[in-house]
Amino acid sequence: MIKVVIIGSGNVAHHLVNAFAKSEAVDVVQVFSRNRETVSAEFNSVKISSDLDNLVEADLFIIAVSDDSVAEIASVISINDRFVVHTSGALTMDCLNTASRRGAFYPLQTFSKQRAVDFNNIPICLECENETDLELLKVVANAISDKVFIINSKQRKALHLSAVFVNNFVNHLYHIGNEICIENQLSFELLKPLIAETANKVMLLSPEEAQTGPAKRGDYQSIQAHLDIITDENQKKIYQILTQSIQNNGKEL
Amino acid sequence: MIKVVIIGSGNVAHHLVNAFAKSEAVDVVQVFSRNRETVSAEFNSVKISSDLDNLVEADLFIIAVSDDSVAEIASVISINDRFVVHTSGALTMDCLNTASRRGAFYPLQTFSKQRAVDFNNIPICLECENETDLELLKVVANAISDKVFIINSKQRKALHLSAVFVNNFVNHLYHIGNEICIENQLSFELLKPLIAETANKVMLLSPEEAQTGPAKRGDYQSIQAHLDIITDENQKKIYQILTQSIQNNGKEL
Repeated sequence: MIKVVIIGSGNVAHHLVNAFAKSEAVDVVQVFSRNRETVSAEFNSVKISSDLDNLVEADLFIIAVSDDSVAEIASVISINDRFVVHTSGALTMDCLNTASRRGAFYPLQTFSKQRAVDFNNIPICLECENETDLELLKVVANAISDKVFIINSKQRKALHLSAVFVNNFVNHLYHIGNEICIENQLSFELLKPLIAETANKVMLLSPEEAQTGPAKRGDYQSIQAHLDIITDENQKKIYQILTQSIQNNGKEL
Repeated sequence: MIKVVIIGSGNVAHHLVNAFAKSEAVDVVQVFSRNRETVSAEFNSVKISSDLDNLVEADLFIIAVSDDSVAEIASVISINDRFVVHTSGALTMDCLNTASRRGAFYPLQTFSKQRAVDFNNIPICLECENETDLELLKVVANAISDKVFIINSKQRKALHLSAVFVNNFVNHLYHIGNEICIENQLSFELLKPLIAETANKVMLLSPEEAQTGPAKRGDYQSIQAHLDIITDENQKKIYQILTQSIQNNGKEL
């Protein structure tokens, strides 16, 4: 079994520990958490350490903490040529300490502790400084996911940016839809089948093929009617910029 | 059985005919299509007419055509106090001719002919001028959907606007995510599990609770890093306006 130490106790660390627990190729030999007590119930089958200077030895150290803590933690644990990776979409490998063999292990999903995830279906994007380490990292990733991709730091950053558009920003449009419903005594339940179908459609069609609506049709009467009933200036601005963007097919004029 | 004539042969008409075909309460006695040939194969169990002046009599006439053709068709068929409804989210009942009893029958979903839909799960929003007609319309709607709502014209317009945000605009953000992927030699497949989970999350959490990301966290370093790698000015403008909107919780400052 490949021995792995996981640094962190947030959402990503939590789901990684659970996913590896079901695998036969990877053994999580230790989890680091600043606060041992809060996570001991959650990770009851794994040894927890709250001392970065006293980690057990392992084939791989996965740093799964917030972006701004990665470098600091890496500088402490990067001793003895350890193999250290981070799980961040936004960071290059350079933020890791050069005393270690370095890499990235980026699972592309939105995690929250209260929602179970099927890791099998989550793309894991790998990057490594050297080929031997990459082979090891592939085995670790394949132990929990069928979707393993090798991408470089520049691609990972671009992917992280795409994820902001299709996750953070999309969710915010759901929020605006909900706000308009609330303002008009309508239940958000009304929108749920449409939200589901909109996501389902692009599993089979490209977003370009799936595009419909007044902006796509050039139906200026409907566009004006919508602008007339939007009461919030921020919503109006978003409506206008996205309508125009659809008409330019998402490109600068 | 309640006798229904459906005017139109587009996506909505197509799916309505199919849905009613499975119901035991509603009989589609005729479909009107300008071009009889193109739809005869599709609607092989239903009589097709291409002459608006020679429709059979029925308990209900559903006009399922593009918004700008509704009034014209209504003016032709609104004779003999017929009960006439349209399927538009954007139109009030006023666009229908006063010679008829009027109403709206708005199924809130994105339809395309090549995708099967489960009408049971599609909200149908009803409005009527009088109570007796509303009762009939409820029976017709319940024959194909478990989700029947009574809403007024103002609410229907607001709902239609919400739908633009959670469907048209959301799909456009998928498109931008895809564009960024293409630019960086990344497969859109990478984003699909995230797109699915983003939609699934708001089936249980409110969009406000589900919101994550740099804008929500106030992580200005990540925001700046994203702005630095966006090459398209239109995408940059959208990134900025949606980031700011998340920080204002979707409201005008």
